[in-house]
Amino acid sequence: MTSTAPAVPALDFVFHPRSIAIAGVSAREGMGFGGGGFVTSLQEIGFQGPIYLIHPTAPAIRGLKCYARLTDIPDQVDYVISSVPARHVAGLLEDCITKGVRVLHLFTAGFTETGDAERAKMEQAVIARARQAGIRLIGPNCMGLYVPSARLAMMQGQTASPGPVGMVSQSGMNAGEFVRYAMPRGIRCSKVISFGNGADLKAADFLDYLTDDPETEIIVAYLEGIQDGPRLARAVRRAGAAKPLAILKSGRTEAGSRAASSHTASLAGSAKVFDALCRQAGALRVESLEELVDVAVTFRFVKHLGGPNVVVVGGGGGASVLAADDLDAAGLEVPPLLNETQEALAKVTQEAGTSIRNPIDSMNMWDDKNFEGTLLPCATAPNIDVVLYHTSFGMGPGARFADPRGRMARQTESLRRIQEESGKPIVVAIRAPTTDEAFQQTNEMQEMLWRNGIAVYPSIARAGHALANLLRWQRMRQ
Amino acid sequence: MTSTAPAVPALDFVFHPRSIAIAGVSAREGMGFGGGGFVTSLQEIGFQGPIYLIHPTAPAIRGLKCYARLTDIPDQVDYVISSVPARHVAGLLEDCITKGVRVLHLFTAGFTETGDAERAKMEQAVIARARQAGIRLIGPNCMGLYVPSARLAMMQGQTASPGPVGMVSQSGMNAGEFVRYAMPRGIRCSKVISFGNGADLKAADFLDYLTDDPETEIIVAYLEGIQDGPRLARAVRRAGAAKPLAILKSGRTEAGSRAASSHTASLAGSAKVFDALCRQAGALRVESLEELVDVAVTFRFVKHLGGPNVVVVGGGGGASVLAADDLDAAGLEVPPLLNETQEALAKVTQEAGTSIRNPIDSMNMWDDKNFEGTLLPCATAPNIDVVLYHTSFGMGPGARFADPRGRMARQTESLRRIQEESGKPIVVAIRAPTTDEAFQQTNEMQEMLWRNGIAVYPSIARAGHALANLLRWQRMRQ
Repeated sequence: MTSTAPAVPALDFVFHPRSIAIAGVSAREGMGFGGGGFVTSLQEIGFQGPIYLIHPTAPAIRGLKCYARLTDIPDQVDYVISSVPARHVAGLLEDCITKGVRVLHLFTAGFTETGDAERAKMEQAVIARARQAGIRLIGPNCMGLYVPSARLAMMQGQTASPGPVGMVSQSGMNAGEFVRYAMPRGIRCSKVISFGNGADLKAADFLDYLTDDPETEIIVAYLEGIQDGPRLARAVRRAGAAKPLAILKSGRTEAGSRAASSHTASLAGSAKVFDALCRQAGALRVESLEELVDVAVTFRFVKHLGGPNVVVVGGGGGASVLAADDLDAAGLEVPPLLNETQEALAKVTQEAGTSIRNPIDSMNMWDDKNFEGTLLPCATAPNIDVVLYHTSFGMGPGARFADPRGRMARQTESLRRIQEESGKPIVVAIRAPTTDEAFQQTNEMQEMLWRNGIAVYPSIARAGHALANLLRWQRMRQ
Repeated sequence: MTSTAPAVPALDFVFHPRSIAIAGVSAREGMGFGGGGFVTSLQEIGFQGPIYLIHPTAPAIRGLKCYARLTDIPDQVDYVISSVPARHVAGLLEDCITKGVRVLHLFTAGFTETGDAERAKMEQAVIARARQAGIRLIGPNCMGLYVPSARLAMMQGQTASPGPVGMVSQSGMNAGEFVRYAMPRGIRCSKVISFGNGADLKAADFLDYLTDDPETEIIVAYLEGIQDGPRLARAVRRAGAAKPLAILKSGRTEAGSRAASSHTASLAGSAKVFDALCRQAGALRVESLEELVDVAVTFRFVKHLGGPNVVVVGGGGGASVLAADDLDAAGLEVPPLLNETQEALAKVTQEAGTSIRNPIDSMNMWDDKNFEGTLLPCATAPNIDVVLYHTSFGMGPGARFADPRGRMARQTESLRRIQEESGKPIVVAIRAPTTDEAFQQTNEMQEMLWRNGIAVYPSIARAGHALANLLRWQRMRQ
């Protein structure tokens, strides 16, 4: 922690290849997974250097000229993606050495994670040879990199728009799901790394990199196993001291730990020891991918809570009662509002189905003017630290209003202004939609909100849990 | 419990009015909540008797002739919905008595739940007068009834297609949300009752009714308060002995209990005492509306589990590891498959990214033939009680297949056949969609599945939790 970060972290070259070759692209169309999947993803995100394909017989695939061997490519190749069977990797590596390649990403699986001793030996031999030749390996058994600023994508649908969240993930699927779920809620990424078995470059290397990376402000991680415990512990402590850090560590149960070993040859290690490390390091340990996304949203948009006191605002008595239970159970407080606040609220509310104590259950909020008239006194209340507004689409009186988009925009603008004026975070929970139209409206509102700096969650319980996580994180770092 | 159920339960007349009058419909258009909301809902679901409106001055609203007073209506009125202010309810009740009305549903709020002693007294006076005159009251402060077979709806979007699930709910919003979330997952209702303050007819009355109702096979309840504890306890025990029963009881925390009092004037009571009652009665206590929906789906489609052993099948190593953790944490088992089962699976699987131990992480399942070839050996494995298949739309290789609808239909047909042939339940988890197209596909697949008798859940964790709840319920009733 005494070391100062270098201007350009040592591993930076890994994330900025100028040219890529892919070995193992199927000549058959329609096989979207494996090598061909990477071609599609790189083309879609607009990788700006040349993409070379290696195929033993095909003259061209998808219009891209094929080379029988890597060494046949006339130009410099920085980065190679391998989708060939495991037994062909050693040969490909030799070609990489000859060609002066700097990074080999092994999508190829079938090594240590099979549990077969021969295949584990094969993996070790490949690593030893790569080390000797100075080539860095990502994988095997992984999806590699998503780096918007370098126009690298590991899957389709990944935006080229960059942002401050970096991710280290032992699973490509979980990396992809994190990106997919976090994107519509305003999370943009600096670097996302899926590293699989981590035979050469490991979680600790990538954590160190993200800690030093000036483009990364928030770090999230999905880990299955513990490789080189003391080094990983150092990297977690260093990252946790420098930046907000959340870790989803699977293999916390016996069945999960067995599955982790099948998946990435991981030794899950003791959940207790890992918990203790996280507490020490000021790293937030979470238990699901949804929670990891929610925490990223909270680090990004809520940033800091002054205390545990939430005011809950929205239409619907039943939802209010359950919200109070959920927030209280999460470790937050839902205190009664002071008389002065209740008096201010009484001016904009009506009798039926209304409570102005906290939770606020007001049908009058369907009216634009009363919306701000209800939320502003709540946000400025002296005994309140954060406002939770909940709503939904496709149901209730809101479903029958004309111009839903205009209404969303006006509500968002009110929320933005109240957040700014009160200096307290506003968070929004939009309950799950059930119709196509409501789904579209939910997504539109979500986008308006995060573009105005407001955190949004898919349920009151998840918003509450995320806020409680932020408080827990703040306390760990006190 | 020794009493035999009467052929027609005593309260049956409440659920089958032949004509309805609504007092308090606004003459202004566009005010969709309150009295006018009931007009819309009743018209939409196709209520078959006449709907009369009561308004002091308007000649007609929405084309329906208005009467200045209930007593001006020339025909018989069975059921009156009141949306007038609380101070006018006593007068309306006198008219109901004169007119021979049998049931008065008070949507009207502003009684005991306000915490005002005068208003509590007003509620008591109304109840005393109604009892004396033999009129039954639903409410005050509630949404009333949704009865598909009688074409009664409390909100828009409620289907006229009936089914075996009955619900008692102190909150109209939570009743509406239950129906809204349960409907696309195959839950159809017999009777749904929102009863608010429960000043006359209470949870115990409605539970007794559903226990005796031949159209109701499964009962779910949302309760905020305990009214007449010993009677409620008897009703819960009677219902739990007769039918699968799940209860969401809010007010389990201090904040929730305060909110329940503001909402429906409820005394939440001790969470521990209520828990003990549920255990005794064989009633499953749940903690969220989502869990209540999941339990209804599980009672309806899974029905019974032979034991805790789950095989998890689907593409994606990271999801498999998290699934194993989630299921283990929920109290289920994810045992390694026997050698004979693994050998059968080895015939249809390939090397890369695959595990055939359990969870099964097989990319080959994207192929139709291998889909059944993978799932059938899993379902018939001697050490397995239930199959959990997980998938998603809009991501991964599946997103690129032509004819997604045909593929869904073939997968559903395979799952149906395997469930039938193996005699073991198959459940499906479809992870949350993020695009409009994926949302539509998710809903289509969901509908195909439940129409073929297969339970479907929005995440692996929720499926696991629901299966564990079913096991817990089975053990309570042993």
